Amino acid sequence: MTASASSATNRVFNFSAGPAALPESVLREVQDEMLCLPGAGASLLEISHRDKLFVDILHDAQDTLRSLLGISEDYSVMFMQGGATLQFSAIAANLLRGSGKRAEYLLTGSWGKKAIAEAKKEGDAVAIYDAKETNYDRLPTASDYTVSDDAAYLYYCSNETIQGVQYPSEPDCPDSVPLVSDASSDLLCRPVPVDRYGLLYACAQKNAGPAGVTMVVMRKDLLERADPNTPGYLYYKNHHDNDSEWNTPPTFAIYVLGKVARWLRDEIGGLEAMEKINREKSDSLYKIIDGSNGFYRGHAQQDCRSLMNVTFNLPSDDLTAKFIAEAATHRLAALKGHRSVGGIRASIYNAMPREGVETLGQFMTDFAAANG
Amino acid sequence: MTASASSATNRVFNFSAGPAALPESVLREVQDEMLCLPGAGASLLEISHRDKLFVDILHDAQDTLRSLLGISEDYSVMFMQGGATLQFSAIAANLLRGSGKRAEYLLTGSWGKKAIAEAKKEGDAVAIYDAKETNYDRLPTASDYTVSDDAAYLYYCSNETIQGVQYPSEPDCPDSVPLVSDASSDLLCRPVPVDRYGLLYACAQKNAGPAGVTMVVMRKDLLERADPNTPGYLYYKNHHDNDSEWNTPPTFAIYVLGKVARWLRDEIGGLEAMEKINREKSDSLYKIIDGSNGFYRGHAQQDCRSLMNVTFNLPSDDLTAKFIAEAATHRLAALKGHRSVGGIRASIYNAMPREGVETLGQFMTDFAAANG
Ligand SMILES: Cc1ncc(COP(=O)(O)O)c(C=O)c1O
Ligand SMILES: Cc1ncc(COP(=O)(O)O)c(C=O)c1O
Ligand SMILES: [Mg+2]
Ligand SMILES: [Mg+2]
Ligand SMILES: [Mg+2]
Ligand SMILES: [Mg+2]
Repeated sequence: MTASASSATNRVFNFSAGPAALPESVLREVQDEMLCLPGAGASLLEISHRDKLFVDILHDAQDTLRSLLGISEDYSVMFMQGGATLQFSAIAANLLRGSGKRAEYLLTGSWGKKAIAEAKKEGDAVAIYDAKETNYDRLPTASDYTVSDDAAYLYYCSNETIQGVQYPSEPDCPDSVPLVSDASSDLLCRPVPVDRYGLLYACAQKNAGPAGVTMVVMRKDLLERADPNTPGYLYYKNHHDNDSEWNTPPTFAIYVLGKVARWLRDEIGGLEAMEKINREKSDSLYKIIDGSNGFYRGHAQQDCRSLMNVTFNLPSDDLTAKFIAEAATHRLAALKGHRSVGGIRASIYNAMPREGVETLGQFMTDFAAANG
Repeated sequence: MTASASSATNRVFNFSAGPAALPESVLREVQDEMLCLPGAGASLLEISHRDKLFVDILHDAQDTLRSLLGISEDYSVMFMQGGATLQFSAIAANLLRGSGKRAEYLLTGSWGKKAIAEAKKEGDAVAIYDAKETNYDRLPTASDYTVSDDAAYLYYCSNETIQGVQYPSEPDCPDSVPLVSDASSDLLCRPVPVDRYGLLYACAQKNAGPAGVTMVVMRKDLLERADPNTPGYLYYKNHHDNDSEWNTPPTFAIYVLGKVARWLRDEIGGLEAMEKINREKSDSLYKIIDGSNGFYRGHAQQDCRSLMNVTFNLPSDDLTAKFIAEAATHRLAALKGHRSVGGIRASIYNAMPREGVETLGQFMTDFAAANG
C-alpha cells in the first residue's frame, strides 16, 4: 500500500472553522505534483513567481474566480498576504485616511468589531448598527440603520464565522457609497452580485484554499483614492498595477486556491450548484436542531442562519464536552464552538462532503436521544 | 512506478533566486503527509492554527531557528506574512514613525533602495552610503560612512540578491543604535552574531522554505517603541504578544520552514557545517570565473562576493542567451541574471546540492572553451 493510500484511510470529517477541509481530489493533485510540477522540473514551491508556469497558474486562478463569480473587467482581482486582518487596515488606509469622510460599519459579530478597531486608527469610523446586546445573533432590518450618502464606505461581514450569522443578501446601501464586505467565510458558497460592491475580500483558509492568501475584488475606480504614501504593502494600487506580483506572492497558496476554484467549477458545476448542496447540508443540521425539543439551541436567529457555520448550544457544558468526545470516536473532528458563543460550531464549507454532514446529523440525533 | 518516483527523475538543478530549490528530502516528507498529517486525520493544510498539532509545529520551527542561530530569550522570533517587502514598512512604522530621530541606510543594492523608499513615507530616512555609481558592486569601508549616535536604527541588506554582494560580517554600528538587517537571501547560510542586532529578518523563499512567510528576529525591548496606532498587521507587538498567532499564520509555509530548519540542523549539522559547504560551492564557481581569462566577469568585487548568488557577465548578450539555452540541455535551470545587472546569476542557496554546482562548473568550463 502506498503512503498516500494508507494515510487517506485515516482521514476524519474535519469541521474546523479555518484553516478547513479541502477537496480530497485537490490534495491528491498537490501530492502528485509535490516533487515536480508538470513541465517545471521542480516543485511549485521552488519555482520563481516570475516563471511563466507560475504566472499562468496565477492568471488561471484569477480567471476561474472571474468566471465563477461573474466578475467584470471593472474589477481587479488581487491576491495578497496578511490574512483578512491586514485588509481591516488596508481598506481604511486606502478609502478612509485623508478622505475627510466617515466610514460606516454594521456590526453583526466578532470580525466586524475587529475591523472597525483598525479603521478607527485611520480616521472617523462609526458603527451604525451593533448587535452586541443580543450577543450577535441577528441582522439589522432596513429600519435599524441609515447609511450617510457621503460615507467613505459601508462595511459589513457577510458571514460572521464565530456566531454563524450570515446575510441572505446585501444590506441596503446608497449608490454613492462603496459597499465593502468581509466575505472570508462565505465567498464561493453561493452566487454573489459583485457589481453591487466597491470591495469584497476573503482570506482563503475557509472556503477556498490554505491559509496565506487573501482574495481582494476591488472596483478599479476606487484604486485611485488612496494616497501613494500609504505603506506599500497596504496600497492596493501596487498590487493591482503589478497583477499581484508587486512582491513575491504566496505562490503555493495561490496554486492550491486555483485548484479549489477549478474543482468548484468543473466537479461541482459552479456556484448555483454549490449553493444548492450547501443549503441541503445546512438545512439537514438545522432541522435536527429544531426537532430536538430544545436539546440543541441554535445561536443565530432563523432568518440569518449561516450556510457555512452551524452554531448551537447544548443543555450544559458537561454535555457539550461529552458531545465533542463522543463525536471524535465517530471520526467527527474540530466541533468545539468559539468561547464567545460556547457550545458547538460545525463549519461545513464547500469541501465538507455530504457524507460528513450526514454522519454528524446521525450522531446528533443519537446523542440527543441518549442524553435528552 | 509511483507518481513521486517518476516525477523525481525529471528534476532539474534549479538556480532560481527565489522561490528557490528546497531539499528533496523535505519535499518528500511534505508529499507523504499531504493527505494526512500524522495524528491529525487531515492535511496540515486543513487543520486550525490553534490545533495543538500545529502550535507544536510552530514552536518547533521557532526552537530550531533559535538553536541554529543561537538566539537568546532577549529576542522574539516571529513569523509574518507580506514578504520582506512588508518589513520595509513595518520597521519604519515601528522604529522611526514619531520617534523624532532619523533612520540611516547603507545602500549596496536594489533591495536596500526599495526599503529606504518605504521608510521615507514614515519619517526621516537617509542613505549614508550609496554604491549606485559603481552599479552596486561593492561595500563601504569603515571610512565611507558615519552612523549618528542617536539614529533610529542603522539598516543594511546583508546579501543583495540581485547584485550578488554580501557583507562578510556586520557593518560598524554604535552600541546605542539598533542594527537592522534584511537577511532575506542569506540568513541560515552561516553563523550570525544575533546579539549584535536590533532586528534581523528574512523572507523564507530563498534559503528557508516556500514563499509566504517571513522570519523576524527582534530584540524584545524594541517591541515597545512603536505607537499602538500603527496598522495592526505592521505592529510587531501584536505578533509577539500572540506568539505569531495574532491572526491566522501561513501554516503550510511555517511547516515547511520548520522541516528545512531541521534538515539543516540534523542532516547538514548546523550553520558552521553549512557555511563550509557554501564556501566550497561558491569558491568553485568564482575560481572558474577568475580562471576564464576574462570570458566570465564577476559583478561583485572580490571582497564582497556572495556565497548565495554568483553573478557574472559574458562577452555579449548573444553569448549569454546561448549559455542559458545550452545550460538548459544539461538540466541547469533559472540562470538568467536580473535585468539591472544582466548576464548570469546562479543562486546556490543551502539546498542546492554540490552535484548541481559541479554540473554548472563543468558546463561553464566547457562553454568558455568552446566559445572563448
Ligand atoms: C469573517 C472573518 N474575517 C476575518 C478573519 C481573520 O482572518 P485572518 O486570520 O486570515 O486574518 C476570519 C477568520 O480567521 C473570519 O472568519
Ligand atoms: C534581499 C531581499 N530583500 C527583499 C526581497 C523581497 O522579498 P518579498 O518579495 O518577499 O517581499 C527579496 C527578494 O524577493 C530579497 O532578495
Ligand atoms: Mg489577468
Ligand atoms: Mg490568510
Ligand atoms: Mg516559543
Ligand atoms: Mg514571503
